Amino acid sequence: MAEAHRIPVVTLRQQLRNIFVAWGMAEAIIRPTVDVMSETDLRGIDSHGIGMMPMYAEMRRQGRITMRPDIKVVRETPVTALIDGDGSLGHAPATMAMNLAIGKAKAAGLAAVTVRRSRHFGAAGSYALMAAREGLIGLASTNAGSKAIVPTRAREPVFGTNPIAFAAPTKTNKPFVIDMATSTVAVGKVKLAVYNNQPLPEGWVVDPAGSGVRNAPDAFDGFGRLAEGYGITPLGGLAALSSHKGYGLAAMVEILCSMVPGTPFIGALDDSSEHHTGHFFLALDPIAFREEGEFESELDAMIDHLRGLSPHDPALPVLVPGDPEDLAHADRLVNGVPIPDMLMQAMANVCREANVEFLLNGSA
Amino acid sequence: MAEAHRIPVVTLRQQLRNIFVAWGMAEAIIRPTVDVMSETDLRGIDSHGIGMMPMYAEMRRQGRITMRPDIKVVRETPVTALIDGDGSLGHAPATMAMNLAIGKAKAAGLAAVTVRRSRHFGAAGSYALMAAREGLIGLASTNAGSKAIVPTRAREPVFGTNPIAFAAPTKTNKPFVIDMATSTVAVGKVKLAVYNNQPLPEGWVVDPAGSGVRNAPDAFDGFGRLAEGYGITPLGGLAALSSHKGYGLAAMVEILCSMVPGTPFIGALDDSSEHHTGHFFLALDPIAFREEGEFESELDAMIDHLRGLSPHDPALPVLVPGDPEDLAHADRLVNGVPIPDMLMQAMANVCREANVEFLLNGSA
Repeated sequence: MAEAHRIPVVTLRQQLRNIFVAWGMAEAIIRPTVDVMSETDLRGIDSHGIGMMPMYAEMRRQGRITMRPDIKVVRETPVTALIDGDGSLGHAPATMAMNLAIGKAKAAGLAAVTVRRSRHFGAAGSYALMAAREGLIGLASTNAGSKAIVPTRAREPVFGTNPIAFAAPTKTNKPFVIDMATSTVAVGKVKLAVYNNQPLPEGWVVDPAGSGVRNAPDAFDGFGRLAEGYGITPLGGLAALSSHKGYGLAAMVEILCSMVPGTPFIGALDDSSEHHTGHFFLALDPIAFREEGEFESELDAMIDHLRGLSPHDPALPVLVPGDPEDLAHADRLVNGVPIPDMLMQAMANVCREANVEFLLNGSA
Repeated sequence: MAEAHRIPVVTLRQQLRNIFVAWGMAEAIIRPTVDVMSETDLRGIDSHGIGMMPMYAEMRRQGRITMRPDIKVVRETPVTALIDGDGSLGHAPATMAMNLAIGKAKAAGLAAVTVRRSRHFGAAGSYALMAAREGLIGLASTNAGSKAIVPTRAREPVFGTNPIAFAAPTKTNKPFVIDMATSTVAVGKVKLAVYNNQPLPEGWVVDPAGSGVRNAPDAFDGFGRLAEGYGITPLGGLAALSSHKGYGLAAMVEILCSMVPGTPFIGALDDSSEHHTGHFFLALDPIAFREEGEFESELDAMIDHLRGLSPHDPALPVLVPGDPEDLAHADRLVNGVPIPDMLMQAMANVCREANVEFLLNGSA
């Protein structure tokens, strides 16, 4: 059927936990990992929650995830810190880093914490939102672990999809949050198009001649042939529409997450090289600049204004960043997280390999 | 003639200075303003240097520039500060703010300084580069003063072109720098297309029906009829190519430059409302995270790698952010700054109104 299975979030969380336990992951790592992943699925960011498990299972087979890591602060000032992730999946060191930034920003007004020697951390927005829920502005970024973005004019991908997430606190609305790959789209969206048997819009993926690829399986297959020149466009899409800006943003993220914490620039590595991922987090307290509550009420006014704008098409109202995720969250908390057939099969395989019970088909 | 006049930078600086003196601007304001504007012209950012003078002259006629402002720090911690610009042209308070951020970041590792009650500050990259030249990572942003960007799905412009600039220090290369409007293009580029009699690429400017405008004078004329629904697209251009990301970035800049320092959100004001502009600056010292020199040498390696990539077209080599500006700077320092005919005429008018000698035609 085209309709995906709907899985209650408690079942999804239990499934993730059981797999991580079977993998020998330390309890202190499992907790934040399951929290971040299941929240990501509730918020509708299907490409970065449980949809990542087949890739994590592959990384585990390759011995690329430290299951009982020694995550620690290796350099620290009152407003900065560098954390070593010891090869852990990124969710735990990233959670620790943003919590550290939040604590420092509450004391000093501003803080930046970076992470080196980490792995994929899920959706960047999860960490930016942690700050907003504590009344702070939050910024989160990572140099995604595999080459995807083809710089303007170039014939090969160099950067990961290098996301930028930003969140800010409100009073009457949900927090403002953006969470965006600096590519036109995330690789995960192409994978979902394959799962859902949909064509791609022109300008998402380029071939070695610099032309667009519309067929999703061809495009996804191209990600296995990056050396030939396949890849994703930077935000902007085409040069005439300023793809050099998306390219510049991707490079900015690489600088913040590679050169600042000290993780390799993946563009210069060959595809088989083992390498870690870096993260960058910033927290800023509005109270350093404004009187109590002024920032939040003015942001609420902006959000209300945006939501009230006249749309071109009355059937497509103007959205505020974060709206689609908040709608998904409200729906999925009640009706469960949709899991497409191909992901169900992939998860069944992950469970079989880990020797844990497959829980997701119980509510199909 | 199609070929623009070439004006030596010393002449351009003298022309700007003479006009500002005639306007009664304080000497302490003139110096940073002329420095930032002339450097912007040398770096080839024609839309944000002397090309702004006709608009500044119009703002002056309207009494919207404080010529002898009392610019001061109104709130301060070791890592943050809020500056009141007292209605000055933005270049002076912005220069003061970034210098303050640089000093604090050298002492503490990290600093953020914001400015309220300011005006147009020229090119954001000028301030990010100040940090990079001092060995720091710099970020600069402003909520540009007139509505231009139409949010995805909406029928009216809400945000200015809200630029993001980011610069980082190097050893062997020029500093890395991006300086980008969060629109597909800057309003100034449409104005230059009018000056240069060129058509617009599809997707830069939308009309009230949401369709693209190709004719540059029509598009520029549309900026005078914003209430009808003309405006510039967010980075991405069309919804299918993720214009919601450019919209999100424009909103992020508005939050940092409006709600954080405390300046009005222009989207909610009618077009005749008097309002100020805000700025946001961040400086970060890599030494807080790395050993001396590691950051710079790894960034140099990334820049060298990018510049060495194979291009789709050998006639169009892969560029590194900042390359076009560095090439323009090398050329213009020797050969002068090109000034199109229409700008020459506009500057002649500005000089006539200010009762100062028109110097730019001396080398035409």
